[in-house]
Parts: sequence; C-alpha cells; structure tokens
Amino acid sequence: MALIVQKYGGTSVGDPDRICNVARRVSRWHKEGHQVVVVVSAMSGETDRLIALARKVNPEPTEREMDMLLATGEQTTIALTAMALNGMGVPAVSLTGAQAGIQTDGIHTKAKIANITPKRVHEFLDAGNVVIVAGFQGESTTGNITTLGRGGSDLTAIALAAVLKASVCQIYTDVDGVYTADPRKVRNTTKIAELSYDEMLELASLGAKVMQARSVEFAKKFGVVFEVRSSFNDNEGTIIREENKSMEHVVVRGVSVQPDQAKVTIAGVPDKPGVAARIFSSLAEASLNIDMIVQNVSLAGTTDITFTINKDDLARARKVIDPVVAEVGAREYTAKDGISKLSVVGIGMRSHGGVAATMFRALSEAGVNVQMISTSEIKISVVVDQETAIQGAQAVHDAFGLESKGKPFTPNAGIAGATAPALAAT
Amino acid sequence: MALIVQKYGGTSVGDPDRICNVARRVSRWHKEGHQVVVVVSAMSGETDRLIALARKVNPEPTEREMDMLLATGEQTTIALTAMALNGMGVPAVSLTGAQAGIQTDGIHTKAKIANITPKRVHEFLDAGNVVIVAGFQGESTTGNITTLGRGGSDLTAIALAAVLKASVCQIYTDVDGVYTADPRKVRNTTKIAELSYDEMLELASLGAKVMQARSVEFAKKFGVVFEVRSSFNDNEGTIIREENKSMEHVVVRGVSVQPDQAKVTIAGVPDKPGVAARIFSSLAEASLNIDMIVQNVSLAGTTDITFTINKDDLARARKVIDPVVAEVGAREYTAKDGISKLSVVGIGMRSHGGVAATMFRALSEAGVNVQMISTSEIKISVVVDQETAIQGAQAVHDAFGLESKGKPFTPNAGIAGATAPALAAT
Repeated sequence: MALIVQKYGGTSVGDPDRICNVARRVSRWHKEGHQVVVVVSAMSGETDRLIALARKVNPEPTEREMDMLLATGEQTTIALTAMALNGMGVPAVSLTGAQAGIQTDGIHTKAKIANITPKRVHEFLDAGNVVIVAGFQGESTTGNITTLGRGGSDLTAIALAAVLKASVCQIYTDVDGVYTADPRKVRNTTKIAELSYDEMLELASLGAKVMQARSVEFAKKFGVVFEVRSSFNDNEGTIIREENKSMEHVVVRGVSVQPDQAKVTIAGVPDKPGVAARIFSSLAEASLNIDMIVQNVSLAGTTDITFTINKDDLARARKVIDPVVAEVGAREYTAKDGISKLSVVGIGMRSHGGVAATMFRALSEAGVNVQMISTSEIKISVVVDQETAIQGAQAVHDAFGLESKGKPFTPNAGIAGATAPALAAT
Repeated sequence: MALIVQKYGGTSVGDPDRICNVARRVSRWHKEGHQVVVVVSAMSGETDRLIALARKVNPEPTEREMDMLLATGEQTTIALTAMALNGMGVPAVSLTGAQAGIQTDGIHTKAKIANITPKRVHEFLDAGNVVIVAGFQGESTTGNITTLGRGGSDLTAIALAAVLKASVCQIYTDVDGVYTADPRKVRNTTKIAELSYDEMLELASLGAKVMQARSVEFAKKFGVVFEVRSSFNDNEGTIIREENKSMEHVVVRGVSVQPDQAKVTIAGVPDKPGVAARIFSSLAEASLNIDMIVQNVSLAGTTDITFTINKDDLARARKVIDPVVAEVGAREYTAKDGISKLSVVGIGMRSHGGVAATMFRALSEAGVNVQMISTSEIKISVVVDQETAIQGAQAVHDAFGLESKGKPFTPNAGIAGATAPALAAT
C-alpha cells in the first residue's frame, strides 16, 4: 500500500463525463489498496468564464477579489469529483486549499506556498477516504484566500506529495509524457522514460507546455519524484527524478523549438561598465521578458549586444530601446522577428563532447543557417529563421539518434565521425 | 453614523449589471457615513446550474459535497460585488461565511447557526471597508463548509445584525414590502408600514414568499428590527419589529391565499388514545408536510379527522394512508384537491372580537363556501374551493377595510353592525 498524489488538469476534468472518467481512474488505485490524494484544477473554460464576469463589473478587478472569485473554480471541481467517487461507492471527501492546510505568503494572484499543515488530509486518509484537494489555492496567515498563479495546481500536488511523503506524484495531463521533440511537428519522436529535474527545467523554460518551471524547481528542492502521464489512456508516462549515473549515458535527451521570437541587436555599444545594466534595467522596468542575451568580445572599444524576446513584445521593446540607444552612446539598433529558438537538452552533455559539433553539422546539412548561439551546462540553443526551424529540429533529432528506442545517442557512436570538442559551459 | 446590514437576494444580483446596481445602492449608504455589511445570495440560476452539474456526476450527491459545491455560488457573488464597489472607488472586501466567523451545528444542507465570531468583520469595518459576506453558508466546528438551507441568506443577515448590534437589517428583494394581500391577485391592496414578528411569522407560514419563518423567528428571538424593501426602487419598505401598543389597534393586518392544497378526511376513526398519533407518525415518516388538522368532537365512539397537504403530495399520502386506515380500524377515507387556504392575520385579533363573524359573512355574501376552519391566536384560516379563493380574498380584504390607507379596520367601525363574539385561540 502506497500513498499516491495525483493531479488532474483542467482538460482532464473539463466536463461531468470527464470528471467521472477521472473518478473511475482514481477508484482503481483506491481499490488496489493505495491511499490516494487527488489535486484538481478548475474545469477548462471555467476560469475564463469567471474572469469575463469580473471584467463586466470592474475592468481592473482587485487582486484580492480575483482570488476569492477564481478559487470557486477548483472548489466546484473538488465537490464534483468527490461526488462522482461517492457515486461509485468510493468514500471520498473534498477539501479547499485552506482546509487542506495550505498556507501561503499572502501575495494575491501569485502566492507562494509558505507551509502545509495537512492534519485534515491525514485524518480523512486514515479513515479510508480518497481526499480531493483544490489546486491553485491556499490561505494566507491572515485568513485570506490566495491563488498560486499559473501552473499552481501542479505546485499544490508536488508540495502535498513532499509534505505527505508520498511514494509518487502523478501529474495527469492531455499528453502522455515528455517526448524527444514535439510529436506534432517532428517525425519519429520517442517518449522519454526518465528525466532529471534539471533537464525538465530546461525543457519547461523552453516552452514545453507540460509544466511550469517553478513546480519542477519545488520538486527538485524537496526530492519529489513525479510522473507526467495522460488522463486519457493507461500508458506509462515520463518519470522526473534526481539525476543518476544511468541518465548520464544519454547525452541529448530532447530537442525543443520555441517559435515566434524576435531578436534585437544594439550595435556599437561602448564597452564600459554599467552599459549593459542600463539597457536591461530599462527593459525589465517595462516588464519585458528577455530570453537569450549574446555579447561577443569587444573590438575597438565597442561591442554588439543581441537579445531575443517574444515577437509580441517587440513593439513595446522598440519604445524602450529608442531613448536608451542614444543615452548609452550606441551606434544603432536593428530588430527582426520571424525567428525561432532551437535547443537540445541533456545532462549527459556535461561529461561528453561533440554535441555542439554534431548539432551544427546537422543544421548545416539541412540547409539551416545559425544566427545566434547560446549554451548552458546542459543545453545548447541556436536562433534560426522560423521557416527553417522544424526542418532543423528534425535534422538534429535524427542526428542524435533520438528516434531509435533503446538506442539513444552516445558520443562517437550515433554520429559517424563526429569530432568531439568539449562544450564549455557559459 | 449607523451600522447597517443589508441583504440582497438572487434576483437582485442576478447578472453583472444588477450587481453594479446593488453596488451603487450600497455606495450611497457608505458615502453617507454608515458602516455597511452586505449579505448576498448566489446569482439567480447559479444554484440550479450547480445542482444540474452535480446530478450529472451523481444522481444522489452526498450532502457534504453539495454544500461544498453550492457554497461557490455565494462566493462568486461576494467577489463580484466587492469588485464592483472597488470599481466605484469604495473600499470593500468579501468574506465567505467561514471567514466572517459564522459557525454552524454542522448539519449539511440544513445547518443552524450555532455561533458568530465576527472578528474579521469588525476589523474590516473599522478600516473603512464595506464588508460583503456570503449568505447561506458557514463552517462547522470541525471545519466543514455547511449551508443553511432555504432562505439561509436572510438568516445570515439577521444573525449578523444581531451579533453586530446593527441599527437595522434591510432585506432587499424583488417586492417592495409586505402587502395587505397579494397585489397581483387582489385589487386595492396597501403596503403595510409596520408588522410584528408574530404577524410576519404567520404570513411567512402562509406562503407569503418574502421570507422563511425561521429567519423571522431568529429576528424575534434576538430582537432584530428588519425592513423588507425592494432593490429595484427607493420606496420605503415594511418594518418588522416587536409588537407595540399601536399595532394592536389594527385587528386584521393582511389576507393570504395558499393555492394548490388538498384535503384528506379519514372517517369513522375509533376515538381512543394513540390513533391520531399513529396516523400522523406514518405521514411524518414519509416526510409529508401536513398543514391544517381538524378533528371535531366524537359522536358514537368514532370521529372524523381531516388534514390538508400540498396537492403534489397527495399521491404519496394515499400510499401511506391506505394501510393505516385498515390498521387503526377507520371506516374509510376520502381525498380531494383543488382547494385553497384563505387566512386573515393580525395581532389585534387577540383583544378584539368580531373578526371571525366578519370574515365568514364576507365570504358568504361573496358566495364562497367554507369547507374547514382552523384558528390560532392571531390567525383565522378557512379552506375553500380553489376557484372561489381569489374572490373570497377580495371580499375579506374589502370587508376589513384594508384598502383604505390610514383607515385600517377597527372593530365595530369598519364593518357596520358586526356582532363580536370573542375568538377563542385553539
């Protein structure tokens, strides 16, 4: 008998039929003798419906009241899920975030979990119940309802798994795991059986929509093993856990493409302290999310700085940069959208060379021009024309042998003749 | 500066526009310098929507989970109402029943308020806020969400008014007060300026849909003065308070008609102890609500017992009575629907005679046949054919002079020549 925490997202509980499906799935685990804690999100569409209602009474609703309003979304789902289980003869009770003892730091609409006192969860579990907990919400020390922001239900599940010392935390979603690349865009992808937290973090930050980075960080911090799997089939999912020796044999775990990016190059920037800080402070003050930043070594006292942002932010970025370019005495700036970021991720990179070379050769052979390069310890990202991004991803995916199940890429094996310069972490 | 508790029902907060109307109304009281606590119900239709969702996952949903589900209805309204006020520049915060300190006896779907600890209500009021409290709900001592059953939001408002020592409790609804008879059915009705709790109780029990009896009882017990008024206009409403000398001058306060009743007569019932108990226990076990019960003096060792019920319950009542008639050795029973109950109510009756005589004469002159009579200290009820009920009500209304504002009926004045036998309370 194990204690299992399961989390079902909005699509999985999108209507009464799907809630009954979830209940059937939960009841199987319960009947096998496991103690089950289920974390659910609001039914898909419900949060949007509530936001629309709010905007009708106040175009800029107060954050405290938004939390009060949105928290009803998960509360509706927990009640319905418990009822569905009860209807199948399974004892089940629902608990709001506050009732489950989830205490937050009180920052409305984007609270952090400060503490969990799962007394009632234990009591109801010990009495033989499945316990259904509202995701995405908790209570501040002063008793206000606070929501956890985007991806908050994942966070609830992982935090509960940590504090309850659950055997595993299952994140049910509408994909059945993490793939070597997006199966809708790249051929012959493979589901990854096991990933390290760091690899999952890089994939999350690359826009693989499975989970928010902060939930993965939380899981890493508390050593919570979790599995991403589908609520629509019984396939095994992808397990995310602390890295171990066997993971390092796989050099590249997956390929990710982030479309709809733009790049801005500020040319002839005086190479002296404080200039870069000045540029990026201005962008941060305007709440513009900068992704890659590349600055090459300085020649003749000036340098060029390039960064990428979402293309939707480009117009706003121009307004910020116009005065800054003049102010710091840069020569000019150019901006261009229609680019994508293509990345390979894998903890094995740290101990194996040849990855960058293999990647660049594959791209070159596929006729994809590399415009920018940025690397981290376990990731290499390049910027390419958006039109060539998918063919580039396919070429890289094939080059690292990710399509062949059981035969993942290992250096000097998958790619004939790859020379292997060590990849420096930057 | 006064402390005012206001309650707005589901129709008054039925959509975002109406919520904004309520907010404007509340803001006027706030701007006049009053401290305002607002109790709101779920938006009309919301509770039905939630119940329909519940039935789709479980035809017989658990009561605990129904409470969890239905409580989201008021929680949605409090958030939207607070947002609407915030949008008008009025500081306002929402509180769930639990947050407002409303503790219940824990009986799901029909809890009683056990205690109120309005610490947070006071804090937010003292900080200058309008405080919006979710009606209909509270928390048990073990931390479960419990709802108060039908009319629960009125109860929340009156209980809060009691514990906060409010100057007045305003119950806003879609009628603008209590009338001498239903204005949609009887001509020349008058709005009643002031009523005693007992009169309001009798009117409530007679199906005047303004308020549930238990809210009135609660107000009576704690001496909470409340006003029933409309949320759609600014008319003065009807004030309900402890009776005083001036109220007694009015003998008949109003006339009420309860349609869609049925009567059941069990004939030849052996006149011995325990027989009536046996009959009505069986009906109670089947959760059948009995209204009037009439038993005349016994002749020749047997008696006839007649009672009234809602006509919708008649089929179920027959199933219960069939075996009971045989078991207690009664001769037979007859049942008939298509009847109405017509009542006059007024605390002045206690000290003035002639009421019954006036009522019966008015009915007789209008050609309305009286089938059953039952009286209490401040009420006389008769059963008549449903087809004649409205003309009977009009005749009685006119006979007691209720149509003439400022000239209410007083004995031996309104009705010329009325002889006045004292009306015995039964």
